[in-house]
Amino acid sequence: MKLVKEINALRSHLKEITFKAAQGGKQLQVGFVPTMGYLHAGHASLLRQARQENDIVVLSIFVNPIQFGANEDLDKYPRDFEADMTLAGQMGVDIVFMPTPEEMYPTPTKTHVKVSQLTDLLCGASRPGHFDGVTTVVSKLFHIVSPNVAYFGQKDAQQLAVITQMVHDLNLDVKIVPCPIVREPDGLALSSRNVYLSDDERQAALVLSQSLELAKRLTSSSNSVNIGQLRDSVISHINAEPLAKIDYVTLTSFPELEELEDELKYSEIQGDVLLALAVKFGNTRLIDNVILTKKGL
Amino acid sequence: MKLVKEINALRSHLKEITFKAAQGGKQLQVGFVPTMGYLHAGHASLLRQARQENDIVVLSIFVNPIQFGANEDLDKYPRDFEADMTLAGQMGVDIVFMPTPEEMYPTPTKTHVKVSQLTDLLCGASRPGHFDGVTTVVSKLFHIVSPNVAYFGQKDAQQLAVITQMVHDLNLDVKIVPCPIVREPDGLALSSRNVYLSDDERQAALVLSQSLELAKRLTSSSNSVNIGQLRDSVISHINAEPLAKIDYVTLTSFPELEELEDELKYSEIQGDVLLALAVKFGNTRLIDNVILTKKGL
Repeated sequence: MKLVKEINALRSHLKEITFKAAQGGKQLQVGFVPTMGYLHAGHASLLRQARQENDIVVLSIFVNPIQFGANEDLDKYPRDFEADMTLAGQMGVDIVFMPTPEEMYPTPTKTHVKVSQLTDLLCGASRPGHFDGVTTVVSKLFHIVSPNVAYFGQKDAQQLAVITQMVHDLNLDVKIVPCPIVREPDGLALSSRNVYLSDDERQAALVLSQSLELAKRLTSSSNSVNIGQLRDSVISHINAEPLAKIDYVTLTSFPELEELEDELKYSEIQGDVLLALAVKFGNTRLIDNVILTKKGL
Repeated sequence: MKLVKEINALRSHLKEITFKAAQGGKQLQVGFVPTMGYLHAGHASLLRQARQENDIVVLSIFVNPIQFGANEDLDKYPRDFEADMTLAGQMGVDIVFMPTPEEMYPTPTKTHVKVSQLTDLLCGASRPGHFDGVTTVVSKLFHIVSPNVAYFGQKDAQQLAVITQMVHDLNLDVKIVPCPIVREPDGLALSSRNVYLSDDERQAALVLSQSLELAKRLTSSSNSVNIGQLRDSVISHINAEPLAKIDYVTLTSFPELEELEDELKYSEIQGDVLLALAVKFGNTRLIDNVILTKKGL
């Protein structure tokens, strides 16, 4: 496993191994997992799939300053270099790309990649500028790594939809592979931010996955439930937990992320429905979601 | 010479020849000249340089709808497929990429690449959204063609500065090569839009290059001339022509495009100065510019 911190060094290395393979008649396929580090089993599942499907696996670790708002947790975002390198080694990563902020932004960027509409709601509404920071850094990383395939967790469903839209609109030659949410045995979705939770908050946070399960039951057991009823049920369930403070509970089409009207019956909706939640426990804001599909109905 | 209209076909072809060359131990260098067609000697000079410096030369011809404002000349923008193909052949172009608007924008784009600050003044001020359209389509074309080098005329000095900034900020792996303005024998800068001019307007348009020459003389003959005086002299010269209607006469640093204060003496400015003009003759808006350098003083 190779640790690379400089953009030019990464490019040269990737070009060299790609060219050497081509000389031998082989087209290398590069799989890419971009992360902010502090890796957990969710990241491990992305790396495992990337390892299975590609010749070269590149993992990037970069806490991207421009996707954090002024009052967010950039400075205290958790980091653990040793543990990340150990996990990367276990997962068979070939190259860890870990640039400094100065390497990625030698001057403040004047260029932003902006996806409209899909970024106006959900986390985009409460974190203005967040997705511009995400799409800008992801397009930078795609330009640096030139992957054939990139892996993103469905946990960040809006991020996945926004990046898929960007790749489509800008003709980026990358296949985006969504990977299922990985959960603790009790249902809590894995997140680097779970480390912020107190014991009580950790317990309270179970309302997230429980309320998603509730919505799944409602949509599979009733043909008449409508979007408003679904949302109200989820909100009631979460509000029953005193430590939980709802940021949003939103139902949209997926992957278009168009908000659905309250009167719409779930059974009459064509296509997939995203139920997405953002809830604060103390100072820690957690997100979770489920994509409700008609499969199996 | 190969004419390609589809993105996937272009990508497959470029990948195939690149891979075959690599099998033979050679790394192909791809030079790219993006245009809106109706090619003239200015484009020819870009293609000539691209031919000299690369293994493969790709010319794109695409009149990009999203860089035209609602009241601009998208529909009547001049086109001449036969003449363009003839010139491309003469210049030794390997691949002409000529997609339809539907191929480039199968759905209305929700993603835009935006460069701030550099796009607030000059043509950006009178053509809102224009540069967002340019940077978005150029990034799309770069993703489709994957060139090593791309050639842009200095005639569109702001476009050149904006694209250079975008490439820097987004880590696009493309070298941007600026090419000198090509002029008619009487000094008029070549432009596809010159075809719109009546005989009288064609004659009147000579004030553009003449006023740039005037500015060059003033800066080389006087150590005390300041930015305000330079601009006033250029404005007076252009206003002496009854058919000319000034859109802007602006002096900025280059390539940063920061406006310079009137009191600043030219001789005391570090770095290059861009003098850029946009002037209407009838309904036709023409631009011209010179980069004033201290070289030779």
